Amino acid sequence: MKLWDKGISIDKKIEQFTVGNDREIDLYIAKYDVQASLAHARMLHKIGILSAEELQQLEQGLDVLSKQIEAGTFVIEEQFEDVHSKIEFELTKTFGDVGKKIHTARSRNDQVLVALQLFYKEQLIDIQQKTRIFFDTLLELAETHKSKLLPGYTHLQVAMPSSFGLWFSAYAEVLIDDVYLLKAALKTVDQNPLGSAAGYGSSFSIDRDFTTKELQFSTLKYNVVAAQMSRGKSERTIALALGSLCNTLARFVMDVCLYNSQNFGFITFPDELTTGSSIMPHKKNPDVFELIRGKSNKIQALHTEMVLITNNLPSGYHRDFQLLKENMITAIEDVKDLLDIFNYAIQQVHVNEIDLNDTKYQYLFTVDNINTLVESGMSFREAYQKIGGQVQDGTYKPDTSKRHTHVGSIGNLSLDKIREKFPN
Amino acid sequence: MKLWDKGISIDKKIEQFTVGNDREIDLYIAKYDVQASLAHARMLHKIGILSAEELQQLEQGLDVLSKQIEAGTFVIEEQFEDVHSKIEFELTKTFGDVGKKIHTARSRNDQVLVALQLFYKEQLIDIQQKTRIFFDTLLELAETHKSKLLPGYTHLQVAMPSSFGLWFSAYAEVLIDDVYLLKAALKTVDQNPLGSAAGYGSSFSIDRDFTTKELQFSTLKYNVVAAQMSRGKSERTIALALGSLCNTLARFVMDVCLYNSQNFGFITFPDELTTGSSIMPHKKNPDVFELIRGKSNKIQALHTEMVLITNNLPSGYHRDFQLLKENMITAIEDVKDLLDIFNYAIQQVHVNEIDLNDTKYQYLFTVDNINTLVESGMSFREAYQKIGGQVQDGTYKPDTSKRHTHVGSIGNLSLDKIREKFPN
Amino acid sequence: MKLWDKGISIDKKIEQFTVGNDREIDLYIAKYDVQASLAHARMLHKIGILSAEELQQLEQGLDVLSKQIEAGTFVIEEQFEDVHSKIEFELTKTFGDVGKKIHTARSRNDQVLVALQLFYKEQLIDIQQKTRIFFDTLLELAETHKSKLLPGYTHLQVAMPSSFGLWFSAYAEVLIDDVYLLKAALKTVDQNPLGSAAGYGSSFSIDRDFTTKELQFSTLKYNVVAAQMSRGKSERTIALALGSLCNTLARFVMDVCLYNSQNFGFITFPDELTTGSSIMPHKKNPDVFELIRGKSNKIQALHTEMVLITNNLPSGYHRDFQLLKENMITAIEDVKDLLDIFNYAIQQVHVNEIDLNDTKYQYLFTVDNINTLVESGMSFREAYQKIGGQVQDGTYKPDTSKRHTHVGSIGNLSLDKIREKFPN
Amino acid sequence: MKLWDKGISIDKKIEQFTVGNDREIDLYIAKYDVQASLAHARMLHKIGILSAEELQQLEQGLDVLSKQIEAGTFVIEEQFEDVHSKIEFELTKTFGDVGKKIHTARSRNDQVLVALQLFYKEQLIDIQQKTRIFFDTLLELAETHKSKLLPGYTHLQVAMPSSFGLWFSAYAEVLIDDVYLLKAALKTVDQNPLGSAAGYGSSFSIDRDFTTKELQFSTLKYNVVAAQMSRGKSERTIALALGSLCNTLARFVMDVCLYNSQNFGFITFPDELTTGSSIMPHKKNPDVFELIRGKSNKIQALHTEMVLITNNLPSGYHRDFQLLKENMITAIEDVKDLLDIFNYAIQQVHVNEIDLNDTKYQYLFTVDNINTLVESGMSFREAYQKIGGQVQDGTYKPDTSKRHTHVGSIGNLSLDKIREKFPN
Repeated sequence: MKLWDKGISIDKKIEQFTVGNDREIDLYIAKYDVQASLAHARMLHKIGILSAEELQQLEQGLDVLSKQIEAGTFVIEEQFEDVHSKIEFELTKTFGDVGKKIHTARSRNDQVLVALQLFYKEQLIDIQQKTRIFFDTLLELAETHKSKLLPGYTHLQVAMPSSFGLWFSAYAEVLIDDVYLLKAALKTVDQNPLGSAAGYGSSFSIDRDFTTKELQFSTLKYNVVAAQMSRGKSERTIALALGSLCNTLARFVMDVCLYNSQNFGFITFPDELTTGSSIMPHKKNPDVFELIRGKSNKIQALHTEMVLITNNLPSGYHRDFQLLKENMITAIEDVKDLLDIFNYAIQQVHVNEIDLNDTKYQYLFTVDNINTLVESGMSFREAYQKIGGQVQDGTYKPDTSKRHTHVGSIGNLSLDKIREKFPN
Repeated sequence: MKLWDKGISIDKKIEQFTVGNDREIDLYIAKYDVQASLAHARMLHKIGILSAEELQQLEQGLDVLSKQIEAGTFVIEEQFEDVHSKIEFELTKTFGDVGKKIHTARSRNDQVLVALQLFYKEQLIDIQQKTRIFFDTLLELAETHKSKLLPGYTHLQVAMPSSFGLWFSAYAEVLIDDVYLLKAALKTVDQNPLGSAAGYGSSFSIDRDFTTKELQFSTLKYNVVAAQMSRGKSERTIALALGSLCNTLARFVMDVCLYNSQNFGFITFPDELTTGSSIMPHKKNPDVFELIRGKSNKIQALHTEMVLITNNLPSGYHRDFQLLKENMITAIEDVKDLLDIFNYAIQQVHVNEIDLNDTKYQYLFTVDNINTLVESGMSFREAYQKIGGQVQDGTYKPDTSKRHTHVGSIGNLSLDKIREKFPN
Repeated sequence: MKLWDKGISIDKKIEQFTVGNDREIDLYIAKYDVQASLAHARMLHKIGILSAEELQQLEQGLDVLSKQIEAGTFVIEEQFEDVHSKIEFELTKTFGDVGKKIHTARSRNDQVLVALQLFYKEQLIDIQQKTRIFFDTLLELAETHKSKLLPGYTHLQVAMPSSFGLWFSAYAEVLIDDVYLLKAALKTVDQNPLGSAAGYGSSFSIDRDFTTKELQFSTLKYNVVAAQMSRGKSERTIALALGSLCNTLARFVMDVCLYNSQNFGFITFPDELTTGSSIMPHKKNPDVFELIRGKSNKIQALHTEMVLITNNLPSGYHRDFQLLKENMITAIEDVKDLLDIFNYAIQQVHVNEIDLNDTKYQYLFTVDNINTLVESGMSFREAYQKIGGQVQDGTYKPDTSKRHTHVGSIGNLSLDKIREKFPN
Repeated sequence: MKLWDKGISIDKKIEQFTVGNDREIDLYIAKYDVQASLAHARMLHKIGILSAEELQQLEQGLDVLSKQIEAGTFVIEEQFEDVHSKIEFELTKTFGDVGKKIHTARSRNDQVLVALQLFYKEQLIDIQQKTRIFFDTLLELAETHKSKLLPGYTHLQVAMPSSFGLWFSAYAEVLIDDVYLLKAALKTVDQNPLGSAAGYGSSFSIDRDFTTKELQFSTLKYNVVAAQMSRGKSERTIALALGSLCNTLARFVMDVCLYNSQNFGFITFPDELTTGSSIMPHKKNPDVFELIRGKSNKIQALHTEMVLITNNLPSGYHRDFQLLKENMITAIEDVKDLLDIFNYAIQQVHVNEIDLNDTKYQYLFTVDNINTLVESGMSFREAYQKIGGQVQDGTYKPDTSKRHTHVGSIGNLSLDKIREKFPN
């Protein structure tokens, strides 16, 4: 059953190809199509197209569907090409012509658009909350381990003293930048597109301000052509916000896997969190972290997909846009999982005692030692030459007593300041 | 059931996350795991690790599984983390310790690697054949419509005469370049990796030349570390070959959709191939082509995903690689579909008569007319100025009588030459 | 001359390769290195490391350099590996040891980081302003051409009436979403990183709040490891904000080139804006727009470059980051040019009269006509069947009298509302 | 001076934007434009358009230019928009109308296309040769260090014994796969496009077989529309071949940097090859390798750029294609540098003695020990449980005496076999 049936049989092969797995994907947006249909129906009543009785029937019908969706009993059968056809069919089955009337002054493009924006909006808020939870976990870990030193590296070479406090809270603070992008993406989707119809508006005198309030959008996408262009725009924007967040997760995992390697030995995880090998009985592999990294990297590629599907297409709807949904929805589900699992797994980290007297770390304190000389009056360049000379002739003796006190340093993590920066 | 069970219970949450949808995906490679297991068992017999009787049992057991797979009755139940555990379990259930012996001198990495290479090899050959079919269709269409002129555009501006023969066969010839890449990808996967074990070889004196012949690989990936690095390398290479092919398909569709627009009106398709609108009763949309374009563009993004998952990882296996399989396999299935559907749909094209006397095409023949002047002795630059002057002062009269005769031009499509170029 | 010279001669070949074209690129950030050096010197005075006299000398020296930079006479000679070495050399040449003292409590990483953030901040503000100018131009064009109808397309098929007003203002409104991302990028770079030294802070008791105020950053990147991770993070974020903006520009150009094609004929441009052909005297090609599209698409790829250079690198500085600068700076310069040129060129558009009675546009009004039936009491689905029947049997007669009045439609562009939405 | 001058002054601003940095880039292809012009002139003589005397003059003129180009004295002045205008101008200045005649039966698109294909062809051959040199170096290093063991890692966890011989030759063998792609790219560009004119061929009876032989192309791109589509196709294909090669280089560097870290300590480099720090006097950073990795990663992004610039554009030339040249040429130059520098630097590697008795490596030999048990009759799964038990209860004692002998393993690197695989 199609919303556009013209009595001509469509080639089966072609039909199967064009419908694809829309039915499966549409289950994610069913809830939002019902929400938007309700708002649309109320608006149609307000402008006199639906009578009070007709509206009541539609409200009742949509309520039934809403409950089915919530209960997980809502199914899109083979004969429907998408969720929109299914919902209209159900309303018509129960209420006859009234069910058909709900499609007045809107088009399927409209329905997909508004349902997706509502879905995306809710998901972005959810992801932001999960990011906050992870952020808090990292700050707690930083607090817990603030006094444990860690070698700091540049170029993967031993450089200067760092600490576990610094390490954990660094990734927390970086997450804030990712939230700026999540918030920008949220602004992009938080604009009511309903009323754009096929992308050029309607000759009915629909009340778009009404549906905007009804659906709790912060504003409208006024221009109907712009509203239609939200297809693609929303997905590209969300993809880059998720990609940015995932970049942070992936880099963090890279550290985790390195620090967990026997050659670093900075951290370990309980056996329950690790995975074995089919031939090496000693292996305790950090698969869970590697999969977080791998999935994060995969999600970073999503933006390229969203761009390529939409790029250089002239304005107006093209069926290509249908393909934006699938991997977008998968990515959203994945990001939520990644944040949950990472948050869960990182709390089980065991931070090892690191012997900074080991010869491989012997030059970790050269800069601190130079600084002591500078404080006693030597110019920086001279002190640098002096300690450098000691390093070269083998006479260097580290003095590890120096304390770091400035804002954001080992001895002054400023965790509260970082916590305050997290946007509401 | 895991190949590496150590009696320690793994966190459920973690397990679910790490297994992901491997079971579902592994059905695609089950057939090849059985093939490779058979070759491995025969090799173990050859080097004296399995007795003749043991081999016979394993051959029999693998044959049963092979038939189940072919019949579609093979299932990987919840208790197995992947196809490899499942197969070993089945062999052990039937033959006891003999079933366990098959894992001697190989590892799961080995199994995944070799099964994937076998799968990829078969798929690439299949895709190449489907490309050939599409290529032949395009050349036939070129032959059929060789005498029908078409305006040629540069910068989307009317430029010089082209023809449907030229248009169809152009895309055919471009496909040949894509086949060069498919063949390079085939060479990359047509190298036996079996024997790399966990990525560093085995202390058993396995006979890798034997399994290479048995599995009909053209050569080995000799170095076991290099063999392990095929994970990622194969996927990146296939992704770029498929991406290249899909780029050709997508660009072709762009022409199709443009030429099918009322503003060009060069081609149309039967109603059964088009799709309607939920609000516009006159619409006959080329959704099938748009979806070919969209999916082609999506597949062009796959390479970025494969790169990002593997990039900057140090050598040696990482669990991130597991994530390479899913979208790779989907893309392979999609490419085969795209070639089938495109081949089917394009044959139904209706080529319209184009009125080249329409004023918008009036300057289509200016270059031909310049050339006539040049042939009568004028320098090209002078002739250019003369016809250009006529265009500017409105006195230009097109002479459409000029014939193009050189190799590869409208009047001499050289279809046989193009056909000969297609690599075997 | 190197800031880290140890008296060992570096391989020439290696040196040339590692320095690359840093000197050329560093001219873009010279101004900001001077600014940050000034703030750093003042802070060193505040915490007692520089005397009042020393500070005065450095202020004087930096002022000279600042003026040279502004005058365009500042040169980084071959003997310096970057701008930072050059500036320290100049200060030392003039003021001896005092010049060397400025490097106290900071490192070159610090300098690059803070100079880049200052540079990026200024550029993002500039780009946002240019976007506003282009936005205003589009709204003016929309106002000017608001009553001129245009066929609206879906699937590149004639669909429903649109208008030039709708078209121009659609792209304006879409730009607002791009500005959300520009603002998120601005927030990301508007955080003082100075004080992170080599990425792990300093043992001097530097006053980072002081330099934050001095440099007019809105806040600090507190955590010094997080500050160091701004390398890469800033570039990735800016790249995606620019890419989003460029996506809008590119899609707009696609429409422009299509509408300018003889087969659409909706718009033309004056001869001075077009380019000719070496063989076709009639050509007036829209090269300028195609180059805007091409450069926009190129800039959309920048994000992938920024990601690939930084992906999966463990925390801490790596020299790979040096490579982020080059194409980032080029892209920033390009985006400013693109906005200028597009803004200039689009104002010269000539909007043609379109004959909507042409047979190819005959079904443009079917939906409007259905709606009239609906308003007279028919259900939408019935009216759809009725008009659809007329289309099929050839009896359809368009009624073009219907007006669109709702917010954001042809008859009610809501330009003021759109103007209000543009973020400050 | 433009090849298409129509006497109308083009807007300065627009002109500057459209010409861009073409003059600078065109110096790379000047040599090939002369070559192709020569072949074209000889063909024009063969088909009777140029007299023997005219040809002689043009040959003489082109020879002069050719020598200037080789000597580095050839300059494209401001008044020319590209190299093609410049060359035609020079010929005309010397020989009058004869100079103008050379543009007969070709167009500027033709010239750019054929010059680029010739340039690309030469570069790809060059890159392949440099890859061979690097390949040979790696095999030599493998031979030299074949008996030195190295811990092998999976998941960055200590796994099984590897060796420097295995490590070096692994990357050598992987390079072979990259060469398959280079060769596919070479096949793509080794097809004469000359004669496509503006993309639709010519009405002159040009002899394309003649120019194909003259220019030593292996074959023609027959179809003129297909020939025009080489723009973009060539660049995309080269970009992905270079990207594949660079992926190998980048991954190799990741190992290098890790192994060079104090925490691994497997390799070191002489001081002359390393770089210092502005604040840490002990630093010997592997900047050269990091820049190889960074540039390699950057080049991996080039393919996305080439795809985005060309994607979804309908057939026929668009000015967007001009933008393909710049980063493509830079990337080609960079790849040659990378191979040179990497080949130079890696030869200076110092391979350290690794103490495999260190506790962190104690489980390196578990699999070998399991295999010994298997060879004495135990099933693999049993032996795995036994050694696993020893590992868990702390009684495991490594036996390091096991030898690996199969093809491609530590004890049998099969370097000659790998050498034979390298394609000619």
